[in-house]
Amino acid sequence: MPQLSLSNAEYIGRRQRILERLEGRDATTLITFGANNVSYFSRFSFIPTERPIAHLLTANASILLIPNLELEHAWAEGLIDDVVVYPEYPGKRPALDYLKDKLVELGLETATIGVDADGYGQIYGYRGPRVSELLPDATIVSALDEIEHMQMINSEEELGLIRESARWGNLAHSYLQEYSKVGVSEIAISQRASNDASEAMIRALGPQFRPRAFGGTVATATFRGQVGKASALPHAMSNNAKLQPGDVLVTYGGSSVWGYGSELERTMIVGEPSKEQATFFAHMLAAQTLAIEELKPGLKCSDVDRLVLDYFEENDLMRYWRHHSGHAKSTLIHEAPFLDIGDHREIEVGMGFTVEPGLYVPDFAGFRHSDTVAVTPDGVEWITYYPRDLESLIIPV
Amino acid sequence: MPQLSLSNAEYIGRRQRILERLEGRDATTLITFGANNVSYFSRFSFIPTERPIAHLLTANASILLIPNLELEHAWAEGLIDDVVVYPEYPGKRPALDYLKDKLVELGLETATIGVDADGYGQIYGYRGPRVSELLPDATIVSALDEIEHMQMINSEEELGLIRESARWGNLAHSYLQEYSKVGVSEIAISQRASNDASEAMIRALGPQFRPRAFGGTVATATFRGQVGKASALPHAMSNNAKLQPGDVLVTYGGSSVWGYGSELERTMIVGEPSKEQATFFAHMLAAQTLAIEELKPGLKCSDVDRLVLDYFEENDLMRYWRHHSGHAKSTLIHEAPFLDIGDHREIEVGMGFTVEPGLYVPDFAGFRHSDTVAVTPDGVEWITYYPRDLESLIIPV
Repeated sequence: MPQLSLSNAEYIGRRQRILERLEGRDATTLITFGANNVSYFSRFSFIPTERPIAHLLTANASILLIPNLELEHAWAEGLIDDVVVYPEYPGKRPALDYLKDKLVELGLETATIGVDADGYGQIYGYRGPRVSELLPDATIVSALDEIEHMQMINSEEELGLIRESARWGNLAHSYLQEYSKVGVSEIAISQRASNDASEAMIRALGPQFRPRAFGGTVATATFRGQVGKASALPHAMSNNAKLQPGDVLVTYGGSSVWGYGSELERTMIVGEPSKEQATFFAHMLAAQTLAIEELKPGLKCSDVDRLVLDYFEENDLMRYWRHHSGHAKSTLIHEAPFLDIGDHREIEVGMGFTVEPGLYVPDFAGFRHSDTVAVTPDGVEWITYYPRDLESLIIPV
Repeated sequence: MPQLSLSNAEYIGRRQRILERLEGRDATTLITFGANNVSYFSRFSFIPTERPIAHLLTANASILLIPNLELEHAWAEGLIDDVVVYPEYPGKRPALDYLKDKLVELGLETATIGVDADGYGQIYGYRGPRVSELLPDATIVSALDEIEHMQMINSEEELGLIRESARWGNLAHSYLQEYSKVGVSEIAISQRASNDASEAMIRALGPQFRPRAFGGTVATATFRGQVGKASALPHAMSNNAKLQPGDVLVTYGGSSVWGYGSELERTMIVGEPSKEQATFFAHMLAAQTLAIEELKPGLKCSDVDRLVLDYFEENDLMRYWRHHSGHAKSTLIHEAPFLDIGDHREIEVGMGFTVEPGLYVPDFAGFRHSDTVAVTPDGVEWITYYPRDLESLIIPV
């Protein structure tokens, strides 16, 4: 049976490690508010709203602060010992007052407490106090760097989920390429490809498969607006464009497995590429190949971006540069660290990166492949594996 | 031609109104960081990432702070006079330093400046200074309440977009109901319904239609995991369940038009409802009807929730209560104000609300309809219009 979730041991190990890291800062307690961090330590995956949800971790207990509406859901999904339930937001009493009561009950009102943020964020109109206001006699320290660093290093189980995700992103992308025809809307092509790949995915993986994604789509492929001239906008949004001969397309394929994802992007061309298109494509491919081949533990993130920038400079391409070479990737769309000239963090074994240097020619076209790789002792493992060469990415007209 | 976007006059009017409101607090400048707020005032809709984007508004200028990768996109989509471009995040120099340079250039380093937040949020690993740290001699005041209050009151153009959204949410939901069959996965049903509705939507609305949604899906219908016993979890997540006879289903249908949406939710039952199912359904329907019929300007939000709670109490249903009666709805999933016993803000003409009291019976089923309504001088306009009666919502087996 494919590995489609994380074991309880994985969550328990994370908790031990973060508490060990916090010991050095004299903290014995952690409170997380970010949805991704709550899920990371509690196993509870949920829809973040104006109703605060938080995870309280001590050496002895894993406790969720939840609104009443998540009561049964939290017990069913979370790896927890207790819950603190408040009726509703805004309700008659602030949600975080219930958390304070629990901290006082546990004798933590004067403790040193690590947090990912000093309170719940201003999401969907939420307002509420900071933890440091709630507990004026406690010492509140940011544990965000420690949490993020743990999240950067993927375990073998986490890598398994990212690899599983890549299979179905590959399928969705394959359908996207097949359904790409002149005269058809980018949205219709994307819908059909995502539909067919998701249906195959749920059938193939069976009832034990849990996407942990918000909506119904579990495998997705899209152009996200990067069609024709708009492909030159690195972060275009869907424009309902119909494919035309000569269009350059920049794509995305991915899927969600227990909340983990991979990123696959390709530059495709509708019809026979022009000489100019082929030249930009070749430079993009060369820069990506260079970055992936050189990526290895011990380098700094900035070193990889420097290689790409050197390539662009040597080939007089800097006027087409718009963004850095990649970012970490596991459960969010983007994550730190960044393959960026200004990010001097060290590349470590187990990190997962997208590698995606791009070239963007205004009013003409954009060129970007993105592959997800995992850092190994010697270099990288390619997690995504869709064809990268130009010939494989031409849409016949 | 259907109205599918907001006019420039709409954006210009918003800017005048927020600057007038800020005058009372001696501020002549507004900086917004939240993606929804930046889009609200600048017309620039984008994918928020670790790269800060902000909007600077003065009496004379609308200026976007953007990373290099959004350069052409911001000029194409934004209603702006100028841009401040930084190369990349993290880059060699903090993004907000570029904003500071512009503020100094405009002579605003000692001004009183309204903000929606004191800096850019910790999104995807971003770290950076607060505005109050950047500009120690300026006076930074929160304008968040003023911005949110403006966003609560929909103009006629905004209501037009929400009404348009409801058409296609209705279509998606209609497909969802038709495709709901015993033995089929909730994800497959949702995918097909969303696919077919989106394709119809883009064909019907034509090339001028701009969803302003991130991915390829523009019309969506889903169960989001509320299938069978899991329908008792108000915020379940997709579980890849197959429909079975006797299942209660709680659904969602909606679409995105220029970023505006509506919310339609229905309780459906697979096969002939049991007496218990029919009883809970009837109570849910009665409570929703009561709330919608009584909703009118001049009441407080809490008054509406009080009516629902009174109904639940009178009928001995409080143990099945899990959440308040609704929330505002325009461009986000949830928005303030909330139809909640603790929200004493006044209901005003032009507000849009979901009305969705629910009953949740653990290990049995959940019952919730959600309709989107707009507040009129006399009461409400129903924006969603899918059948609400039990007979119309039975899935034949």
